[in-house]
Amino acid sequence: MQLIECVPNFSEGRRQDVIDEIVRCFKGKRGVYLLDSRADEDHNRLVISLVGAPAPIQDALIEAAKVALLYIDMNSHQGGHPRIGAVDVVPFTPIKDITMAECIDLAHKFGERYFNETGIPVYYYEEAAKIPERKRLEVIRKGQYEVLKDEAKNNPDRKPDVGGAGLHPTAGATVIGARKFLVAFNVNLDTNRVDIAKNIASAVRSSSGGFCHVKGIGLALEERGITQVSMNLVDYEKNSLYRVLEMIRMEAKRWGVNVIETEVYGMIPVNAILESAAYYLQIADFDPSQVLELQLLDLMGEKAE
Amino acid sequence: MQLIECVPNFSEGRRQDVIDEIVRCFKGKRGVYLLDSRADEDHNRLVISLVGAPAPIQDALIEAAKVALLYIDMNSHQGGHPRIGAVDVVPFTPIKDITMAECIDLAHKFGERYFNETGIPVYYYEEAAKIPERKRLEVIRKGQYEVLKDEAKNNPDRKPDVGGAGLHPTAGATVIGARKFLVAFNVNLDTNRVDIAKNIASAVRSSSGGFCHVKGIGLALEERGITQVSMNLVDYEKNSLYRVLEMIRMEAKRWGVNVIETEVYGMIPVNAILESAAYYLQIADFDPSQVLELQLLDLMGEKAE
Repeated sequence: MQLIECVPNFSEGRRQDVIDEIVRCFKGKRGVYLLDSRADEDHNRLVISLVGAPAPIQDALIEAAKVALLYIDMNSHQGGHPRIGAVDVVPFTPIKDITMAECIDLAHKFGERYFNETGIPVYYYEEAAKIPERKRLEVIRKGQYEVLKDEAKNNPDRKPDVGGAGLHPTAGATVIGARKFLVAFNVNLDTNRVDIAKNIASAVRSSSGGFCHVKGIGLALEERGITQVSMNLVDYEKNSLYRVLEMIRMEAKRWGVNVIETEVYGMIPVNAILESAAYYLQIADFDPSQVLELQLLDLMGEKAE
Repeated sequence: MQLIECVPNFSEGRRQDVIDEIVRCFKGKRGVYLLDSRADEDHNRLVISLVGAPAPIQDALIEAAKVALLYIDMNSHQGGHPRIGAVDVVPFTPIKDITMAECIDLAHKFGERYFNETGIPVYYYEEAAKIPERKRLEVIRKGQYEVLKDEAKNNPDRKPDVGGAGLHPTAGATVIGARKFLVAFNVNLDTNRVDIAKNIASAVRSSSGGFCHVKGIGLALEERGITQVSMNLVDYEKNSLYRVLEMIRMEAKRWGVNVIETEVYGMIPVNAILESAAYYLQIADFDPSQVLELQLLDLMGEKAE
């Protein structure tokens, strides 16, 4: 059973009737499972977390985009979060029985269909970027809707990947892409010295020469009088939790500092946990299908199809 | 979503048409998921692994018992595995959102219904035993069908718990019960000295004073020139994998012996893995619903209802 995660962001976080109508597109659909939807008034933005089969998720996205097209006008939209469109970003993430290459392909095919059916131009980002600079979302979103609406027409460097004639007059553009699942992993240290947490963070993060797929900072948890190495693992398959944690434990020893506890913030794919369990328990040839609930998930998926 | 596991054993492992007809009772039923079915010719026995919601599993079991009643005659049954009935044992195991107390209650209610609808008497075993000695299956099965068919009538100590007048003339009796999920966990040691493996096994198993819910033996893996502590964890919630493994690592040090690798044999509930992962990764307040696939399983379960 192929499973992807998709977290579309819509530029509407205030009008409850519009929010409801968008969210409704993802409910009661065979093969589409709504994990979460969160509207933020300050950001004036709606973030929806979906998991399910690629085809029905794409159908639901088109339906939701048509709702956004009807009610959201970027010319009057205001909000604290950077954005360029009524449907701002649509990332596809491989979860099960689907490769990153297939998710990239899916993003590209969906981008064409999306423009054809909604008239909203598309930029590709992250792994699905066709222009290397556009891997980074902030490059595509530079100056936001207000600047991009002119530049997309007049500056060849900023033309959309699909629908090159400029932005949609009310819905702007949508950034579609493929990316790996991001795991938020924090490690708390029994020291109040932020310099130690910062030093350890710089040892593990890619920007200062550590693990290639780890981003991290050191910070104080002031109310508790301790410090934290706060990380995003942007590829948990290449930089496993256990490897990152053991590196932090090892670095912390230099100062006689210990790990108090760790925290997984938000969702995590089961394989990220199984991999670390198999390491510490030294389980040889562990097959995730030995996990009762995962086999059940497969069987349920087959029945649902 | 309430989930139980059920592993009914039928006394038929040779006639493919009968096997097929029994297995068919568990297919295509809403809320019943067939994990595995295994017929053994020597044992002349069929072992079926199910997981799903309590009510539809019980309905399917009644249906299958009626098939067994029709085709299996214990008076002519022969096979290498101890048995007392055409449907020999039916254990219920709590998996998710259901307690052991509820599974015991379920076993008792099902036992009454089962006798009413099939006429096959019932013995209760393991956690559902009403007579303490009957906790152990081997006590109930002593002398097997051939001895029990007379004793059930004539020896008050061996009367069935439900349907006290003796066994069914062709289908014998069925042992129904509730038990925890059993995890088979083996630990391989870098020594060929079986005495060391046996010594460690006796340190961890309940029968010689170790962990209360661990059974284990030490044995040689002769073709590899190493040894193994082979265990059943009969309550993985009380005796976690990590705790048992760390105890073995600690004991092994006495002889300068190391753990080469471990093996989880067969199925394992996800919580048994998550618990150990949380220990080693020091994850505070880890909630299984943070695992993407487990949340998806819940959502799928809701949709299927």
